[in-house]
Amino acid sequence: MKNQLIEKLQTKSAVIGIIGLGYVGLPLVLRYAQVGYKVIGFDIDQSKIDCLADGKSYIERITQSEILTAQDQGFEATTDFSQVSNVDALIICVPTPLDKFREPDLSYILGTMKSLVPYLRKGHVVSLESTTYPGTTQEELLPRMEQTGLKVGQDTFLVYSPEREDPGNPDFTTQTIPKVCSGHTKACLDVGMALYGQVVDLVVPVSSTQAAEMTKLLENIHRAVNIGLVNELKIIADKMGIDIHEVIKAAATKPFGFVPYYPGPGLGGHCIPIDPFYLTWKAKEFGVHTRFIELAGEINSAMPDYVVAKVMEALNRKQKSVSGSKILVLGIAYKKNIDDMRESPSVVLLQKLQDLGAQVAYSDPHIPKFPKIRNFEFELQSVMLDKDSLKSFDCILLATDHDGFDYELIVNNADLLVDTRGRYDETLLNVVKS
Amino acid sequence: MKNQLIEKLQTKSAVIGIIGLGYVGLPLVLRYAQVGYKVIGFDIDQSKIDCLADGKSYIERITQSEILTAQDQGFEATTDFSQVSNVDALIICVPTPLDKFREPDLSYILGTMKSLVPYLRKGHVVSLESTTYPGTTQEELLPRMEQTGLKVGQDTFLVYSPEREDPGNPDFTTQTIPKVCSGHTKACLDVGMALYGQVVDLVVPVSSTQAAEMTKLLENIHRAVNIGLVNELKIIADKMGIDIHEVIKAAATKPFGFVPYYPGPGLGGHCIPIDPFYLTWKAKEFGVHTRFIELAGEINSAMPDYVVAKVMEALNRKQKSVSGSKILVLGIAYKKNIDDMRESPSVVLLQKLQDLGAQVAYSDPHIPKFPKIRNFEFELQSVMLDKDSLKSFDCILLATDHDGFDYELIVNNADLLVDTRGRYDETLLNVVKS
Repeated sequence: MKNQLIEKLQTKSAVIGIIGLGYVGLPLVLRYAQVGYKVIGFDIDQSKIDCLADGKSYIERITQSEILTAQDQGFEATTDFSQVSNVDALIICVPTPLDKFREPDLSYILGTMKSLVPYLRKGHVVSLESTTYPGTTQEELLPRMEQTGLKVGQDTFLVYSPEREDPGNPDFTTQTIPKVCSGHTKACLDVGMALYGQVVDLVVPVSSTQAAEMTKLLENIHRAVNIGLVNELKIIADKMGIDIHEVIKAAATKPFGFVPYYPGPGLGGHCIPIDPFYLTWKAKEFGVHTRFIELAGEINSAMPDYVVAKVMEALNRKQKSVSGSKILVLGIAYKKNIDDMRESPSVVLLQKLQDLGAQVAYSDPHIPKFPKIRNFEFELQSVMLDKDSLKSFDCILLATDHDGFDYELIVNNADLLVDTRGRYDETLLNVVKS
Repeated sequence: MKNQLIEKLQTKSAVIGIIGLGYVGLPLVLRYAQVGYKVIGFDIDQSKIDCLADGKSYIERITQSEILTAQDQGFEATTDFSQVSNVDALIICVPTPLDKFREPDLSYILGTMKSLVPYLRKGHVVSLESTTYPGTTQEELLPRMEQTGLKVGQDTFLVYSPEREDPGNPDFTTQTIPKVCSGHTKACLDVGMALYGQVVDLVVPVSSTQAAEMTKLLENIHRAVNIGLVNELKIIADKMGIDIHEVIKAAATKPFGFVPYYPGPGLGGHCIPIDPFYLTWKAKEFGVHTRFIELAGEINSAMPDYVVAKVMEALNRKQKSVSGSKILVLGIAYKKNIDDMRESPSVVLLQKLQDLGAQVAYSDPHIPKFPKIRNFEFELQSVMLDKDSLKSFDCILLATDHDGFDYELIVNNADLLVDTRGRYDETLLNVVKS
């Protein structure tokens, strides 16, 4: 079974099924199609399927022509999981959020397994790419696959290979980002290496699914903690009258042993604010605590309050209150040069300022209209930035420093500018750093 | 005054005085002499002066011939601070340890100032290189210089330019490591840039002495926290049966957003375990807390106990106790390939194991005889490693993984090997990772 499957994968006669057509799954679809595989995409969101059927993209950095090219190669998308029988590989790219108690929510993974298990057959490989705690693949996926009576490692194959994406980074693609891969058994790993070997330049094998799960968590924990650290140091430096951005820039001239991370209004995106807590939850089972993760979470999630306090202080100098002030938030994507708003601290800032009585507005060249998202509702459209519109606000809050903004225009026409990104020199009279 | 001094510095007719001839000061002496300056070295330790007078080096990586070459260039060393009148620049490279309450101990800096202030004259520049908390230069050095009646920024000049050394790193030298520089006034900064401009390829100016002080602290805090994080994750991964070294290696294949740091038996050296607490102390004056630093300190300083517990568990598997066992510690320098033992966790391990009743020994190719150091006293000489000597120990503890060790020989002849550095594959029967 194993050798047959590996040969199908290597000759690209295998059909690839990708479950979850979001920021991770859709680029993977395109890459498999690009090298010549037939790909079937699965999603529970009918609107995504309809959009793709119209030959359109719903992700800014993916163009319509890329979708059309993949379709010429045979790519089709469906909500119908019975089509699982027609594919050889099942790559699961579904979200792993936190529930309201900030504990792992595996419902998307488990829902996917429930949908696909009835169609599992000999010669299937299932690869999980979602970020999750060490043990998920073995403890949650393995028993569900084996309840079919098929033997994993012999009849079917189970792989964990965490996605590695960096939205907005033009230097790397799905092909050129090395991919960590693990299998439940050695045979599973061999199949996993064949599955990814045709589409990714470098596949890095590790010894167990637990080690691969931990690898992805380490990558994101590293970022969450380093950002937490500079956020804490920003607050301390600010009290001492020191500009942390100048300090980070100077420290970054050290050619060894230091890597710059930058403070901001809080953590955003689907990974960094969420993933580390998957380890926190699992660690408790072993009687250990993830103290760095918890400290970073505490500091990072308090940053929006810090920024709101800075806005209040800044307005106060002009004898204004937040209540009744017109405040423009610049940038609502969670990081610069992308259109992704998941967990964006800008949205938290908009909400907090509105709750305090401000008239809020936003401008973001990547997001023309405030979309429907979980927990927040704003009937807003991106404000066009010009002299008059800028002058009409009591305070402008730079939250996400897209390269597309005209920073000169902004600072020259702002009455008051609160800068959470260190873009401006604080010696300018109308600028307050936050 | 300023222009005269800058001209003397640029034409190398200025005499450079370097105070503190240790790991930072002595390489700086050599570099100034190398480019053609006359240099006078000051130290309160007569044994260093005598050693240099004999044309000898007391630092492994500095050769006798480098000392002799500097002396040909006019370098001399003295304990006599009246010679301060004969130099133009005073560069202070003295230690800044913590006292027994882990608070900043500025006694070396203040002692130096007391010795040199009587000889201060117009045209002197004083540059502090010691790592310290933001505000030290302005709050401690400035008033002492101005009590002479000389005006800083006009008659004399005050600079803060933190040392950046990486012992054991062959890729960088005093010349090629960019140097951050600041001045109490703009004139002071100009003098500082001239002082270092002839000996360092890139001098990086920052806007205040406080920003420069914070820069050096940030560099070291970054390291202390990242090492603390991987140490915490090592303990968690170990409980989960995951090898953290494999995980770090896999994560390091990510080409963006991740930088590997490695766990170990604890923090060593004069900088990383100490410097961050300078900020901790100063932050309290501003009513803020350095929580990441304190957490990292707590975790890192608990690592030797973790290692001792691993040694106990490993011996226990062989039905042996630490008490009465012969234990060999490999590597007593605080990091690999150097001879520096300052704050080395290996020494803490030796002490703890001895206190538990072990017969301890060590082997270190860089340190033939256990030297006199603060707080510890061992009458030990480095054990030569061969089959017989290795076989004679109940347990071998790899603490510092010098490249000079013969790792094959060690593992092949060790009855039990506890590896704190991830050098060995744990599937080997006699290896326990710690």
